[in-house]
Amino acid sequence: MKEYKNLFTDSIRDELKSFAEYRVAYQEISTLRNILSVLQWDSEITLPEDGREERGSQIGLLSGLIHSKYAGENFYKLAEKARDENEQKTLPGQDERKVEFERLFQDLDRSRRLSQELVEEFSVTTSQAHSVWVKAKKENRFSDFVPILSKIVDLSKQQAECYGYRTETYDALLESYEPGEKAGNLEKLFFNLKNSLKPLVERGKNVVNPFPKEIPIFLQNKLGETLPGILGLSPKISRLDASEHPFSTSLGSKDKRITTRYDLKDPLSSIFSILHETGHALYEVGISEIEGGPSPLHDSVSLGIHESQSRLWENQVGRSREFWEMYYPILLEILNIKEFELGFSKLFSYINQSSPSLIRVEADQITYNLHIILRFEIERDLINGKIQVVDLPEIWNSKMKEMLGINVPSDKQGVLQDVHWSGGAFGYFPTYALGNIYSAQLFQTFLKQNPNFQTEVKEKKDFSSLLNWLKKNVHSKGKFYSANDLIRSATGSDPDSSHLVQYLEKKLIELESINHG
Amino acid sequence: MKEYKNLFTDSIRDELKSFAEYRVAYQEISTLRNILSVLQWDSEITLPEDGREERGSQIGLLSGLIHSKYAGENFYKLAEKARDENEQKTLPGQDERKVEFERLFQDLDRSRRLSQELVEEFSVTTSQAHSVWVKAKKENRFSDFVPILSKIVDLSKQQAECYGYRTETYDALLESYEPGEKAGNLEKLFFNLKNSLKPLVERGKNVVNPFPKEIPIFLQNKLGETLPGILGLSPKISRLDASEHPFSTSLGSKDKRITTRYDLKDPLSSIFSILHETGHALYEVGISEIEGGPSPLHDSVSLGIHESQSRLWENQVGRSREFWEMYYPILLEILNIKEFELGFSKLFSYINQSSPSLIRVEADQITYNLHIILRFEIERDLINGKIQVVDLPEIWNSKMKEMLGINVPSDKQGVLQDVHWSGGAFGYFPTYALGNIYSAQLFQTFLKQNPNFQTEVKEKKDFSSLLNWLKKNVHSKGKFYSANDLIRSATGSDPDSSHLVQYLEKKLIELESINHG
Repeated sequence: MKEYKNLFTDSIRDELKSFAEYRVAYQEISTLRNILSVLQWDSEITLPEDGREERGSQIGLLSGLIHSKYAGENFYKLAEKARDENEQKTLPGQDERKVEFERLFQDLDRSRRLSQELVEEFSVTTSQAHSVWVKAKKENRFSDFVPILSKIVDLSKQQAECYGYRTETYDALLESYEPGEKAGNLEKLFFNLKNSLKPLVERGKNVVNPFPKEIPIFLQNKLGETLPGILGLSPKISRLDASEHPFSTSLGSKDKRITTRYDLKDPLSSIFSILHETGHALYEVGISEIEGGPSPLHDSVSLGIHESQSRLWENQVGRSREFWEMYYPILLEILNIKEFELGFSKLFSYINQSSPSLIRVEADQITYNLHIILRFEIERDLINGKIQVVDLPEIWNSKMKEMLGINVPSDKQGVLQDVHWSGGAFGYFPTYALGNIYSAQLFQTFLKQNPNFQTEVKEKKDFSSLLNWLKKNVHSKGKFYSANDLIRSATGSDPDSSHLVQYLEKKLIELESINHG
Repeated sequence: MKEYKNLFTDSIRDELKSFAEYRVAYQEISTLRNILSVLQWDSEITLPEDGREERGSQIGLLSGLIHSKYAGENFYKLAEKARDENEQKTLPGQDERKVEFERLFQDLDRSRRLSQELVEEFSVTTSQAHSVWVKAKKENRFSDFVPILSKIVDLSKQQAECYGYRTETYDALLESYEPGEKAGNLEKLFFNLKNSLKPLVERGKNVVNPFPKEIPIFLQNKLGETLPGILGLSPKISRLDASEHPFSTSLGSKDKRITTRYDLKDPLSSIFSILHETGHALYEVGISEIEGGPSPLHDSVSLGIHESQSRLWENQVGRSREFWEMYYPILLEILNIKEFELGFSKLFSYINQSSPSLIRVEADQITYNLHIILRFEIERDLINGKIQVVDLPEIWNSKMKEMLGINVPSDKQGVLQDVHWSGGAFGYFPTYALGNIYSAQLFQTFLKQNPNFQTEVKEKKDFSSLLNWLKKNVHSKGKFYSANDLIRSATGSDPDSSHLVQYLEKKLIELESINHG
């Protein structure tokens, strides 16, 4: 495959007038997007309660402005002119710019395929559906959700027809979250994973929370504040806040913000959110460090690759023995817990515990993937017209029994648990499992090339070899490759769930040795 | 004078198509301005250190966008059409809309009188001047500041010539901060004030800090958080943060944010900043509550009136005996101080102490006004061409001797202390003293009409009669009146410094009785 050289240099721009002009317009759009992120971050973190409605108008106005600039005729023509100019002049970086225009026009052409009416109907319907879903979930009445969810499925199918696809309708929607990925490929990947996970699920063990007391939030925060810096996310370009749902967002190339949430009874909840969101943020930092941006190539590859970065730091690194040998004393000291109150083995077993449960966001490393595969199978059939919305609870419950061996006592703990479908985000779920698969494959490759990493972590709190490897092999590539090509270039082989399975098996063996030791 | 009826209703808009159209455009500009305020607030409070440069670009882009929309041909023509339409159709609110267009075109025409070159040269020069001033102040070398300050004075005079004036050059600049005010009028107002303050200065007394220990910031913050709510600024529409320089800003009609700063040795520093900024915020809330906005009339009258609102809560209310009889027990409890450690009389004397000092921002209630009059006299002569920049230190020092009786040991504690002139803000200073004058006059009128206020404060922590009076007589008027007309309508007489002097005299007598009691 072609070696990618980061040829986003400025020097070339003097010779490419139209290219330079198009890049100025792109820069402006990018800056406006960052301003929008400031508004959104502020809405989640600092906005006074009654300011919400007017903030909605501010976000609406700015979103509209960005859309009219990005999807408008002017920008399109400017970009076409720049693309033609690049075709005509043989100058260094010509091929890279060609890819840049491919990515740009993929996105522009895609959004232009939807009619204004469909976009608006989709937006209005999903906005109504949110409160319908909230209420239906609260009252455990799936039937109340059926009419509007059916409408969303219908509109999503219409979207898919507008976008176009080769093999199946679902692929057109998957493309929004995982460009280049196909359901047929996911089916193979997930089939292997599902079969391999089955025996592991049975070997998993539920471990009770070992914390001896509730830990006040200010102490949990003090502990959490230490983490991003240790991993390589400098406080000079980032900050940590608390929010209802943890998230990570980029407000500028040197302004990456993450959030966590605190559980008085379980400080690990906050720690693992911070590890996860720091992973996302480090990826965004790495992308911002690519010279010559912003551009359509200065972007993440896909949600799956983005999730691979968060999962890598959260699970591959954050649940490893060497990480906790390093972090355990820090945790005891800052949280003011004595060693005899919280033994290392108990803590480590708890961190890596697994047992089938009902709720995806609370699931462990092993069963999480099955939760995702279940959703993928269901939403694929739904969009491809093989099943109906009204039948979802039955299908959901029988798949839960089949995959995880558990009975679903109520729809609110079952088919109604997640927000995604009410927002029309069909094709989103599989990216979570892809993130797990990619992360294990990337980390295994890294470890082979860096056998000293675990010692560096344990003895020197030094994660730099990993961060540098990720920067070099993932972050610095921007959106130049597809997810599959990127994984191939970084690991030398196709995406393959066996690395994840091997990791989980090794983990089980490690835990079993603790329990029997 | 004409009674102002708040006729900004929507109902009329159906009949005034151009008016409605112009108001939509105005609403958009206003929303973009609020977004700009979000960016600026975030820059001061939450932005990571290294994000500053890119935030500058975001603010630059958005400011440019706002300017091009507001000062552009399209909006001007739209507003002209709406103004003509209003002239032609006799409908309820016609006169109010006439005032609205007067205010709008005053502002639009004024900004159009400056050439693009002059605006840019002014902006570049003052931006350079800031760092020159910082360095000159640090190194105590006024001579280093002379060339660029001379250039700023020169550019300011050119601005004044473009704006135009009747009597003297300075008036044209004063107009930017205190519309309708004239230097000749200020001269009279300040002449009386200066003469009356002279004997009071000599009766003032320096009181040492009575706090028995340093107070940690989290306790000061806990105390400070109680204040805005007590005064009537709901936490549902506001928030309090810490910043280097305290400020107040409006990010939306229900999103008013204030900041304070903490001094470990003196918790009053933070309390009085909060009182001051809450006053500004309450004014902004009151303006936002006027129906039918935003519009050019949904705005503050002038910087002097804005400052009158902050000073009223800070000084007239916040340094009063009844306020402290109410707040003293709260302060002792939250700051964990025993009564014997911090006696009420000592605290109250400290709160109201006065003695001549070098630095304006640290000055007491009495001498503060003299600091301002000094600056007004100097900048007026400077802009009117009667004195030269190079002579400023000598003039400054001799005026300090004459007005406050003290010697200025160095220019950094003298003529170099304030940032304003380096930014070209000639005409800004007098609004601080106007704020003090207006606040005393407003509060005296209020007290006459509400004799129970002091009991309500002392016994019920109830400030609602004052807030309601201010809403009715000041806030709800928006920018319908000039400052002088507003003061006349609220108090029944012309702006007059005698109310401030009476207040300060009474305060001195009160303190003298404590000291001799």
